[in-house]
Amino acid sequence: MNFEAFFEEKLGGLREAGNYRVFAELERQVGSCSRATRYRPDGSTQDVTVWCSNDYLGMGQNPIVTGAMKDAIDRCGAGAGGTRNISGTNHHHVLLERELADLHGKEDALIFTSGYVSNWAALGTLGAKIPGLIIYSDALNHASMIEGIRYARCEKRVFKHNDPEDLRRLMALDDPAAPKLVAFESVYSMDGDIGPIEALCDVADEFGAMTYLDEVHAVGMYGPRGGGIAEREGLMDRLTVIEGTLGKAIGVMGGYIAGSRALCDFVRSFASGFIFTTSIPPALAAAATASIRHLKVSQLERRRHQDNVAKVRAALDAHGIPHMPNPSHIVPVMVGNASKCKWISDVLMENHGIYVQPINYPTVPVKTERLRITPTPMHTDGDIAQLAGALSELWSQCALARAVA
Amino acid sequence: MNFEAFFEEKLGGLREAGNYRVFAELERQVGSCSRATRYRPDGSTQDVTVWCSNDYLGMGQNPIVTGAMKDAIDRCGAGAGGTRNISGTNHHHVLLERELADLHGKEDALIFTSGYVSNWAALGTLGAKIPGLIIYSDALNHASMIEGIRYARCEKRVFKHNDPEDLRRLMALDDPAAPKLVAFESVYSMDGDIGPIEALCDVADEFGAMTYLDEVHAVGMYGPRGGGIAEREGLMDRLTVIEGTLGKAIGVMGGYIAGSRALCDFVRSFASGFIFTTSIPPALAAAATASIRHLKVSQLERRRHQDNVAKVRAALDAHGIPHMPNPSHIVPVMVGNASKCKWISDVLMENHGIYVQPINYPTVPVKTERLRITPTPMHTDGDIAQLAGALSELWSQCALARAVA
Repeated sequence: MNFEAFFEEKLGGLREAGNYRVFAELERQVGSCSRATRYRPDGSTQDVTVWCSNDYLGMGQNPIVTGAMKDAIDRCGAGAGGTRNISGTNHHHVLLERELADLHGKEDALIFTSGYVSNWAALGTLGAKIPGLIIYSDALNHASMIEGIRYARCEKRVFKHNDPEDLRRLMALDDPAAPKLVAFESVYSMDGDIGPIEALCDVADEFGAMTYLDEVHAVGMYGPRGGGIAEREGLMDRLTVIEGTLGKAIGVMGGYIAGSRALCDFVRSFASGFIFTTSIPPALAAAATASIRHLKVSQLERRRHQDNVAKVRAALDAHGIPHMPNPSHIVPVMVGNASKCKWISDVLMENHGIYVQPINYPTVPVKTERLRITPTPMHTDGDIAQLAGALSELWSQCALARAVA
Repeated sequence: MNFEAFFEEKLGGLREAGNYRVFAELERQVGSCSRATRYRPDGSTQDVTVWCSNDYLGMGQNPIVTGAMKDAIDRCGAGAGGTRNISGTNHHHVLLERELADLHGKEDALIFTSGYVSNWAALGTLGAKIPGLIIYSDALNHASMIEGIRYARCEKRVFKHNDPEDLRRLMALDDPAAPKLVAFESVYSMDGDIGPIEALCDVADEFGAMTYLDEVHAVGMYGPRGGGIAEREGLMDRLTVIEGTLGKAIGVMGGYIAGSRALCDFVRSFASGFIFTTSIPPALAAAATASIRHLKVSQLERRRHQDNVAKVRAALDAHGIPHMPNPSHIVPVMVGNASKCKWISDVLMENHGIYVQPINYPTVPVKTERLRITPTPMHTDGDIAQLAGALSELWSQCALARAVA
């Protein structure tokens, strides 16, 4: 077999389908508010305003966070130097796990190298190690949850997105004695809709099931201490596991689960993806801890964030740019055509210095191609006006339909 | 089902079998040579010398590395802020990938959040996406490689450890037209033995197979530029993929593959574990780049490292402490009894301030329980004498057999 030719052929297929990804090469600029230097393929550079970062609150640029990170480097060095079991458990990991357990009102927490790995390893381990476990999974759950359940090779049922009735229907079909787990998210990344956590927990309770909530797009941003949607709605005690990330609103990198002491210890003791990997650098743990501690008491970032989300929506409305209504901070500007979506993104970057990555199939369904805009507290009113104005101009050039006011 | 009781029961089983892991909580001390502050469960602390770190060359404490990390924080902040595709490709990632491609003499490289994820995602994607691929896997391959092959759900053959003849026997049994990949390591972590790379590549070539080499315990430490065992033996061009980590001798965190442009692009485009995860912080990429660049030209760390490995072996020999002979830097001191291994480790820590994690089943076979000692360039002659003396004392107390001189 000619492997090179095979790879080229498959890559060619992606290009023809318009699904070949070209990464924008950026260099984030500390202290200048959502700005980055973009490196073009020819080596030249331009300054751009980033409108699609998942550093939702700008904590990755906050001196409290970067300062804690540098202090920990000065004390402990760069890397952790080992797996958690073999010399790689640092005092900063332990402090971070305590902080996370407290954030979610749980007995314990366990950190992983990423949110992806935390979902994959936790769901994979629970599904593989609890004999007969059936996992009920929301139809729009993230790839990492799907892969974790696939890894487990346990029974799996997919319920309709955000539909407690469909969940109940499926659970009623299964053996009442079988152990069960219901897995879902709070804020869904691409549409920005929020799951009916309480109703899903009610159904789970009817059948004695564990509940597993992915809060990666909500931690830090919702709830009086940034505990997420479950905190805001007073539901944290209804969840068996709350999973989150340190790589989005917290501004650093890594993932975690929070739950009972026994559950965390069980995953700690049996998850291959936790055991056999170098732990995150102490400096990342220290930075995340500082970020979480700040967001537990400061409302400023959350308030400014929500203010800017409202301002962006109002500016888009004023220009008739259609965006998907939702109760979260994610503003999906609907284009509905893959090539136009890519073209608008390209022109925004080259002509306007505005970076918004186009989101096409397979990440979202065909005909729902979009620009996924994520306002931050640091975007200025001028940034918002520039974004809406540029989109309006391109909307006309593309002959795209305006939203009805 | 009572889930809590189930978790407790399984944890109890681990405790009874002597396999329950208790993590040593450490705080690495910059600038004081393999020293760390250990936090006891009661909150008190003690200074310890770490003898089991995988920061093999101490690069995680090197000012070149920590300085580059802090500089990048000052320029770019803490986290990357997104996946590689959505605002998370930083200039520092691109520079690191170029550096890695150059290190291994390959067209391109691709970084992942960890070495574990790089093996899992790369082998998983190749195995799942190349129709009919058969993967031939060394019997002692790392958990992450095994999980990647398991993820792929492709055909798998396990050949006897380091045995090209067994590999040839297995390959000859399969359809000559089937696409094939042979996966193995250079330095094996627990025994410290080194795979017969050239002979395995010869067999792979006979059958037109791709070759995949895990160099995580060799990158930075072997070869004139730290390219690993394959570089030292002039074999880099025989490998289709070289996989490595930034979390051991490089001193930071993250993993990578290096290979042809098309192969890296293929994995980049199809690997779920690459696509749907936040990229590593720019500061980690900058630190790793600085570490690799330094190790490409400096022989000092490698020479001192090998000198200290020889000194440790000589000191153990002088006291008749049995250790497994091997051609690498890993010094497995054989205890051969799980409870004695744990007891020696505990006493070394409490009474001597020496930290070596005991390695018991299932990480190694029963009756080969060991203390896996990893000398670094920063251990002093005094440290070495203290280690050998303490082991000798405990050897007598445990009535363990001495090695014959």
